[in-house]
Amino acid sequence: MASTEVKKERSQVKIGPKQFPVGGRKIAMIAGPCAVENEDQIFRIAEAVRQAGGVGLRGGAYKPRTSPYSFQGLQEEGLKLLAEARKRTDLAVVTEVISVETVDLVCEYTDVLQIGARNMQHYALLEAVGKADKPVLLKRGLSSTLDEWLLAAEYIINAGNPNVILCERGIRTYEDYVRNTLPLAAVPALQARTHLPVLVDPSHGTGHAYLVPPMCRAAIAAGADGLIVECHNDPEHALSDGAQSITPQALLTLMGKLKRIAEAIGKEA
Amino acid sequence: MASTEVKKERSQVKIGPKQFPVGGRKIAMIAGPCAVENEDQIFRIAEAVRQAGGVGLRGGAYKPRTSPYSFQGLQEEGLKLLAEARKRTDLAVVTEVISVETVDLVCEYTDVLQIGARNMQHYALLEAVGKADKPVLLKRGLSSTLDEWLLAAEYIINAGNPNVILCERGIRTYEDYVRNTLPLAAVPALQARTHLPVLVDPSHGTGHAYLVPPMCRAAIAAGADGLIVECHNDPEHALSDGAQSITPQALLTLMGKLKRIAEAIGKEA
Amino acid sequence: MASTEVKKERSQVKIGPKQFPVGGRKIAMIAGPCAVENEDQIFRIAEAVRQAGGVGLRGGAYKPRTSPYSFQGLQEEGLKLLAEARKRTDLAVVTEVISVETVDLVCEYTDVLQIGARNMQHYALLEAVGKADKPVLLKRGLSSTLDEWLLAAEYIINAGNPNVILCERGIRTYEDYVRNTLPLAAVPALQARTHLPVLVDPSHGTGHAYLVPPMCRAAIAAGADGLIVECHNDPEHALSDGAQSITPQALLTLMGKLKRIAEAIGKEA
Amino acid sequence: MASTEVKKERSQVKIGPKQFPVGGRKIAMIAGPCAVENEDQIFRIAEAVRQAGGVGLRGGAYKPRTSPYSFQGLQEEGLKLLAEARKRTDLAVVTEVISVETVDLVCEYTDVLQIGARNMQHYALLEAVGKADKPVLLKRGLSSTLDEWLLAAEYIINAGNPNVILCERGIRTYEDYVRNTLPLAAVPALQARTHLPVLVDPSHGTGHAYLVPPMCRAAIAAGADGLIVECHNDPEHALSDGAQSITPQALLTLMGKLKRIAEAIGKEA
Repeated sequence: MASTEVKKERSQVKIGPKQFPVGGRKIAMIAGPCAVENEDQIFRIAEAVRQAGGVGLRGGAYKPRTSPYSFQGLQEEGLKLLAEARKRTDLAVVTEVISVETVDLVCEYTDVLQIGARNMQHYALLEAVGKADKPVLLKRGLSSTLDEWLLAAEYIINAGNPNVILCERGIRTYEDYVRNTLPLAAVPALQARTHLPVLVDPSHGTGHAYLVPPMCRAAIAAGADGLIVECHNDPEHALSDGAQSITPQALLTLMGKLKRIAEAIGKEA
Repeated sequence: MASTEVKKERSQVKIGPKQFPVGGRKIAMIAGPCAVENEDQIFRIAEAVRQAGGVGLRGGAYKPRTSPYSFQGLQEEGLKLLAEARKRTDLAVVTEVISVETVDLVCEYTDVLQIGARNMQHYALLEAVGKADKPVLLKRGLSSTLDEWLLAAEYIINAGNPNVILCERGIRTYEDYVRNTLPLAAVPALQARTHLPVLVDPSHGTGHAYLVPPMCRAAIAAGADGLIVECHNDPEHALSDGAQSITPQALLTLMGKLKRIAEAIGKEA
Repeated sequence: MASTEVKKERSQVKIGPKQFPVGGRKIAMIAGPCAVENEDQIFRIAEAVRQAGGVGLRGGAYKPRTSPYSFQGLQEEGLKLLAEARKRTDLAVVTEVISVETVDLVCEYTDVLQIGARNMQHYALLEAVGKADKPVLLKRGLSSTLDEWLLAAEYIINAGNPNVILCERGIRTYEDYVRNTLPLAAVPALQARTHLPVLVDPSHGTGHAYLVPPMCRAAIAAGADGLIVECHNDPEHALSDGAQSITPQALLTLMGKLKRIAEAIGKEA
Repeated sequence: MASTEVKKERSQVKIGPKQFPVGGRKIAMIAGPCAVENEDQIFRIAEAVRQAGGVGLRGGAYKPRTSPYSFQGLQEEGLKLLAEARKRTDLAVVTEVISVETVDLVCEYTDVLQIGARNMQHYALLEAVGKADKPVLLKRGLSSTLDEWLLAAEYIINAGNPNVILCERGIRTYEDYVRNTLPLAAVPALQARTHLPVLVDPSHGTGHAYLVPPMCRAAIAAGADGLIVECHNDPEHALSDGAQSITPQALLTLMGKLKRIAEAIGKEA
């Protein structure tokens, strides 16, 4: 059902208080910290994202962490802060859901349910968000193929939720100057196979702040429908992923360039 | 807690009615079909595994499938057949659990809870099996590192269950003559890092029946504590993974060679 | 000597009859067929490249082929056709050299010596082109690291030739919808490490004509100093690499967009 | 011509003063230092290899080095020492040839011409050794496919030399606990495709001495026709590859186990 053979025209998925259409002529910029840390942090960053022209605020309340001993997120407290940030800025809130049990709770506070790379083939969770009434941002699994990814989307759509946004976040290769290799050809390759919108995450896709702006520009030039970027007011003291977070100032500068690149290919930012 | 820095001597995990010690001097052969299909199939194969000298019977009742439209397994009916096969053969039953909700039910019928590659970082499930009183067979995730894998084991141990068996099942590479590339150096590399037993799955690790016996032999020669192998009485008509399943006759022949290889390196099979 | 630690300002390498500076403010577009096939073909394509605003003409006279039974190129006859095409268009001719023995001969006819991916660590050849008085376009080796690539450049520079242009052409991964995975983050990552100009080859980097224009746009947006693209007047009947060649018309359309993207990031095309 | 479709029975390639048949019932152990360093070193190691039951002495005289500033080998002086070591031990000498110009010289002193991974698609060199009257040991290229590798063998055979021995030395993956990932399934997969003998190099295939003995055992158990192993009398002070070299004592112990594993699968060592 995700296939262009079933539906030729590209899908738009509307997100947040302003029902911004992801997948249309206008590029969607979603930005925010890896993890919600406290009120001051999330409000400052949300305000910066709004000023830069972003349409969504990302922020983790439930963090899937490789080690059981790492910071696992503020959980419901984090969700509340995100909802409050939305009230102040009208940004769409995007946050990860990591277990079937918490889907309902996360739905109460958020606009878009994110499925992380680790959970792309966690089928019970895909079915649970497939029954929710919020759009789903589905990241590509670690080293999954395009087919496996589209079939994961199929689980969600098949369960009743057609509002799926795909998000490329890089694959694991031998390259050691990046955290992941970001294969941007996946963007046009997906667009030939599916009508679902395609975002790119250059933060996880590279792992280094200095590579994020060039790869954001490249993703838009390649035709991506939008971006999801880690942005932190104080990257050096971020509780997680500081090394790959850009500052609000860098986000603002970047948006200026993205606007012109979008225009160069007949879009807007 | 999985580290050799914490505990120097190698752990043994006892499985099944006969409490076979996985991780000891004797090689553990676990074999069986990808999916439990019907009574006749599972009883025939179980008997063949017993006769070949196997200690465990593998068989999927809940199948995590890439496509929502594929056969998803016999579910509880499959578990009952596995338990009946155990009664007849005294083999330890190993079956996959794919959701938090079904952990208790699977525990009723099985001896070893398998966590599949797709779920290696499904943390809610790791915690759930960490609270169960059955040993856990934890497969390496798709393209995970040894560290990520050991930290997944740490989630289980940290939740209260020290009986974790690791199982290498191959990584995704560019090689197209195999389904996955089976990196056997992981066996001695893991044994230098962790005291947990290490099995190898050459069926998923190669994807082709003709490659399974040589890679079983190689795994034992490399020092693996055992094997988990797909075996089917009628591979051509198997409901899943037929191409990588060996016949009961091939299993018997293989075991003869494994016995001699095990002896060559000071073990038994 | 390729390092930014040794020389901070970016290097420019001047190529062809018009001494076009690769590595400056203006994007270098080099295009042409995989192999020189005949007079009509190469003259038509050269003219199309010139009209599209290209600065270089690529075309293989000596083809390194995986199979000894494949077409190996027109050899000296091909070189003569390339030189004639240059006379007519003033484009810089870029052609591959595959053996030490033919370096002098190739130098007689061409403007830029290309070292292909297979020969990136063919050290005798690197030293031979290091002694030549023509600029060298050094492709990244199959699955080489950035360090290995820069050390290959070092062989050339160390032998006396500072005019090295790097060219990213993709790495081999498990991704099967492309011939290679094109890791564009290598562009800014290289620019942080070396002062040498960096081109991108999206033809080999994707293997499919429909992916070439989006990846050309992405490469320029990421900051590449130029592109090398396979272009053929009749891709379906090309003697090699037809599937990844774009038409002269597609090249013209592409150049229009590249111009605007280049401007968006403060460059020209 | 390398294909099992052309010739069903397995080929044997005879090497050295004693014309040892590689590819027969008896396992071929070739061992020695990465680089020939001096008389004392090469004679000591050659003697140890002979005592351990090896049939070949490896040792580099011309070293292809990633950096132009690294030790490049003793060159002709190294060849002379190898020839002298052969006279003392009757071992077959295996050494790498890295340029067309030196093929004749290397042929004067050595029994087997090694083509290294970097040169697997250096076609001029393949043709040159194809015209030589010595057997060729052809390593798998960095990240090459089996087909590309067999076609490289085809270049040699097509040029007139049918005596080609293949050598698997690992592929580059994301795995960071090894220098390369050693995909032993390539051994039976090759044996299904080609009649040429297949050796394995666990030294480059793992990069760590502690992983070499288990992977040697695994390679033989998988059916490899032999091994090529880096062995050094003083690994800590080796001029290159010390970390992956085993001691003469470790080689001796290993050979004892390999003998029994070979017997377990109907061969000898």
